[in-house]
Amino acid sequence: MSGAGQIVVAGLGPGDEAMLTPEVRAALDTATDLIGYIPYVRRVPPRPGLRLHASDNRVELDRARHALALAAAGARVVIVSSGDPGVFAMASALFEALEAAPEHQGLDIRVLPGITAMLAAAARAGAPLGHDFCAINLSDNLKPWSLIETRLRAAVAGDFAMAFYNPRSASRPEGFGRVLDLLRTLCEPTRLLVFARAVSTPDEHLQVLTLAEARPEMADMRTVVLVGNAATRRVGRWVYTPRSA
Amino acid sequence: MSGAGQIVVAGLGPGDEAMLTPEVRAALDTATDLIGYIPYVRRVPPRPGLRLHASDNRVELDRARHALALAAAGARVVIVSSGDPGVFAMASALFEALEAAPEHQGLDIRVLPGITAMLAAAARAGAPLGHDFCAINLSDNLKPWSLIETRLRAAVAGDFAMAFYNPRSASRPEGFGRVLDLLRTLCEPTRLLVFARAVSTPDEHLQVLTLAEARPEMADMRTVVLVGNAATRRVGRWVYTPRSA
Repeated sequence: MSGAGQIVVAGLGPGDEAMLTPEVRAALDTATDLIGYIPYVRRVPPRPGLRLHASDNRVELDRARHALALAAAGARVVIVSSGDPGVFAMASALFEALEAAPEHQGLDIRVLPGITAMLAAAARAGAPLGHDFCAINLSDNLKPWSLIETRLRAAVAGDFAMAFYNPRSASRPEGFGRVLDLLRTLCEPTRLLVFARAVSTPDEHLQVLTLAEARPEMADMRTVVLVGNAATRRVGRWVYTPRSA
Repeated sequence: MSGAGQIVVAGLGPGDEAMLTPEVRAALDTATDLIGYIPYVRRVPPRPGLRLHASDNRVELDRARHALALAAAGARVVIVSSGDPGVFAMASALFEALEAAPEHQGLDIRVLPGITAMLAAAARAGAPLGHDFCAINLSDNLKPWSLIETRLRAAVAGDFAMAFYNPRSASRPEGFGRVLDLLRTLCEPTRLLVFARAVSTPDEHLQVLTLAEARPEMADMRTVVLVGNAATRRVGRWVYTPRSA
């Protein structure tokens, strides 16, 4: 390989190709190397001239370093994330790797946004994030649990609607139950929640229910959970948060 | 008009057609009626058979009622928003209008997400929203100023990164100065901010600076302002928030 390498960090959106932006499509079409978590790399159709580098979960920094090395050698690398790369995904990991590798800071790097899970889920449910809201990653793989609790309390104190990413996984089965328990001490039992699983894929499943009805096992790795603010309400089969509250 | 009417609430993204999703493109291509704020309707190329209903700012509810009436009469209506329709845009207004019009609750309604301004801006800057963050509408047209202050204080207490929509307009020249003054009492002067104006349009302009350097007149109606959390930092020309903080 030779010539000017580059890195594009691209968001594939939630699943359906109809939500993939043309600029991400164009980047995928001209890449020499594709890097990402196995199920995301699998979403890109293989073609001659495109090398695939799929890796397992929790190796984000290794993946970012690999991208830098390939681009430095002249490759046109696309790092794929599901949803938006800047929301609990690969963009932050890439800049963390870049911070530790000053020799690569002259590389051509671009971040291309995508439709993030909470906004795809909100669209399916109506407008539950229709006013001020927070996005919180419930995984404590990289941060202490106390910080998650601090942020939940602050979000409720500010009466923000909320979107929870990574609510529950096989390796973290307990945390989401603690989150629901904490919310039950802070919010009224009629608070509305949306459990949105695998939006825009054949496995899509949407549940709208109250905090009193919510159970930890309703969420898994592919679920984003939306929590309304105190004014969020139902209109027919829809859920929305008024613009004034 | 006759037949089954429908309403699609569609996000046009921040400006560049390369960020418009194929599903929104398809909805625009088959619409009979296009409704929205003047500059957003102007972004859709006119064609025979597409009636344009462009209206001024601050008439969101009238616009939503108009859409319901047209769809009830059999039209295929697309309501366009800039960015994502569920983020400080027309989706919430539509469900508010629907709440007051039970006779229309059987209509075929879909919300199609788009690339919202904060994520387009974040992608240009690096990954400033790379960990937990809040989105706050700084307009007090529909809510009391005290609620904006409560949410700012809560967001800082939770050490969230923040995205401010509608920071400043000709009719609200004062509020954003008050926001910066409040932040200066709560955050360190080196806190990083991104002023991102008209991202992905020919007028795009990005400024990265500290809270000490920020001035109210750096923002206008077309600006989204991102505020890092306490750990947000620069790497070369980029800004990112670590995944662990």
